[in-house]
Amino acid sequence: MIVVQKYGGSSVSTTEKIRNVARRIAETAKHSQVVTVISAMGDTTDDLIAIAKELSTMPDGRELDKLLATGEQAASALLTMALHTQGIPAVSLTGGQAGIITEKVATKARILKIDPRRLREELNSGKVAVIAGFQGITDNASWADITTLGRGGSDTTAVALAAALRADKCEIYTDVDGVFTTDPRIEPNARKLESISYEEMLEMAGQGARVIHSRAVDLGELYNVQILVANSANTTQGTLIKEEDPSMEVRNPVRGIAHDADVARLTLVSVPDRPGIAYQVFHALAQDNINVDIIVQNVSQAGLTDVSFTVALPDLEKAKRTLESVVKEIGARELITDQNVAKVSVIGSGIRSHPGYAAKMFGALSSEGINILGIATSEIRITCLIDQDYVKEAVRALHKAFQLEKA
Amino acid sequence: MIVVQKYGGSSVSTTEKIRNVARRIAETAKHSQVVTVISAMGDTTDDLIAIAKELSTMPDGRELDKLLATGEQAASALLTMALHTQGIPAVSLTGGQAGIITEKVATKARILKIDPRRLREELNSGKVAVIAGFQGITDNASWADITTLGRGGSDTTAVALAAALRADKCEIYTDVDGVFTTDPRIEPNARKLESISYEEMLEMAGQGARVIHSRAVDLGELYNVQILVANSANTTQGTLIKEEDPSMEVRNPVRGIAHDADVARLTLVSVPDRPGIAYQVFHALAQDNINVDIIVQNVSQAGLTDVSFTVALPDLEKAKRTLESVVKEIGARELITDQNVAKVSVIGSGIRSHPGYAAKMFGALSSEGINILGIATSEIRITCLIDQDYVKEAVRALHKAFQLEKA
Repeated sequence: MIVVQKYGGSSVSTTEKIRNVARRIAETAKHSQVVTVISAMGDTTDDLIAIAKELSTMPDGRELDKLLATGEQAASALLTMALHTQGIPAVSLTGGQAGIITEKVATKARILKIDPRRLREELNSGKVAVIAGFQGITDNASWADITTLGRGGSDTTAVALAAALRADKCEIYTDVDGVFTTDPRIEPNARKLESISYEEMLEMAGQGARVIHSRAVDLGELYNVQILVANSANTTQGTLIKEEDPSMEVRNPVRGIAHDADVARLTLVSVPDRPGIAYQVFHALAQDNINVDIIVQNVSQAGLTDVSFTVALPDLEKAKRTLESVVKEIGARELITDQNVAKVSVIGSGIRSHPGYAAKMFGALSSEGINILGIATSEIRITCLIDQDYVKEAVRALHKAFQLEKA
Repeated sequence: MIVVQKYGGSSVSTTEKIRNVARRIAETAKHSQVVTVISAMGDTTDDLIAIAKELSTMPDGRELDKLLATGEQAASALLTMALHTQGIPAVSLTGGQAGIITEKVATKARILKIDPRRLREELNSGKVAVIAGFQGITDNASWADITTLGRGGSDTTAVALAAALRADKCEIYTDVDGVFTTDPRIEPNARKLESISYEEMLEMAGQGARVIHSRAVDLGELYNVQILVANSANTTQGTLIKEEDPSMEVRNPVRGIAHDADVARLTLVSVPDRPGIAYQVFHALAQDNINVDIIVQNVSQAGLTDVSFTVALPDLEKAKRTLESVVKEIGARELITDQNVAKVSVIGSGIRSHPGYAAKMFGALSSEGINILGIATSEIRITCLIDQDYVKEAVRALHKAFQLEKA
């Protein structure tokens, strides 16, 4: 049996925690071949980025990848030493050594293929393989470039390796007990889910639930890898992410409430209301790889309208730069931004077949006196943009309205 | 013209110092192709070793190499970013990317060959190449292992690349102005040497002068690469290490006084004096890769003798372990150790042709009341083992006796 286990940065932030992870792996290694994917220790990645920013306002992507990849490489070697100390044969592998070949794209390369020859050899020789997560290489030659898979990329590494090895289990260990109906720090009645579908998890992750990276879930769905999300600090059961099964039909159509305050609203003020304007704006943003969410366009007055939309907070500066010239081209009066907004979302595959959930959501928010600034929906999600100051109230009201405290 | 420049860890210990190094490189890049070899920032290597030791008393060599190699990889990416900020096209390369292929030996691998294809490409495209020093790879495949060249290995990287590229200059920048007649912190009259022969530099480095790593000098001699040692913090001229030239004949036959307190003496007490004993002792040590220096054997009394020798201080524990069983086999009474010793050496290629220098050295020490505990000589060096408490007095007395303050 092959088990892939991923441990996040908070699970290996100190040598004591590394030893703890080693003990957990040793336990699994008694009855399985183990592939461990490891993130950089604690805040290493952020610390490295901070040093890079001291030297360059816009660090070159290739160099940034090379810098950041050292965090996982170091962690993989250290965890391997800890395993040796416990008498467990183990070997660390960089992304390149594990055969993770990616696009030649810096800072968020996609995996093209996995050549697990060396990884299989190491497993077959009885060793635990400790893989530096979050990274790959552009070719199978020593002179190829080191790439990274973007934030949360270690999750992607784990699921991709599980798929390539046809592993029996893929386990993502983190600092929470699993996927909850909502953020338990906000709503004490939040309930841990035993299972959740890929689709629901994708919506949860996309709307602010930080427990696992979307790309990993996507990949899991694509290759049908069931992913267990669990806590590295205890032995509670965790949440299994898998394809939707018929029994899910009878449960609560809503699975969870997500919230995301890392969002900013941009408004193009007094835009001449003529065809092609929206294309000019959103095409420019798409060209620069900026994802746009909740779009709101007012009714036109005197031939002028306001266009608002949200972007992820880290994309705000880039979006402003992108739109500088667009504002002039389309003849808008100005571009204003607002960071004091947040998104709250109701998510569940049952939403698809149950009309009326949107109305229920709006009602719950309005009964708390929370103003809705914008709305976006998917097949299984309804998202409202609200004032950031009301996030907690909104989450609690929605959790209650949809009776998520009940199993 | 190709110039290889190596900057040590103390030259890049802060982002401000990295910017300073970038400015120096930018200056050289105006008129030359530049290959920069970089060490890890400041105390990074020691810090990483400390973390490893928290996890394992004897960290696996392969894993340690992988851990330590991250220090230089990170520094190379950061320096490259700093060069970009100055408008200099630059690219960082790991040892593997630079084509440095080594033995499959951990922690002190020797370079087998250099395949500088990618390095040449980058140079020819007009970029400064920033190489992570101190490291290589065991094969030109992405799954090959990362190795390190041992302490001071970045010097070796620089000289090896200079040889492979047939570079016009090889410059080692450090935190001192060059090679001095002796340690200026001990003897204020110490004089910087304009040049020194490979052979002399090897003896100086081997006997405690920390300015450049012996293997780099060795390699320089082998491939006839002239090596300039200079200060990264100023523009003083430095010392050129090169082959001995005829003009050296007329200068002072002695070039410098070295001292080394990182040494320990081991004594096998009451060893039965029969043939083969020395072989058993020193063969065991050689098998474990422990270099032995000054060997002293007393005149035998009643068939018993004492055998003393010195090892480098970091090898002491290993030497003790190695000799545990040997002590029993040869029937010695016990093994005792003394760390309170030091070596002082008089070095110069003129020693070879000028008899009487040993006597002069012993005389200078005895007139200071310093007891000689052991003696070792090479063709161009005389070394005495003394009490560590008298190192400064010994260095000053010898510097004066051999008139090294005079040009």
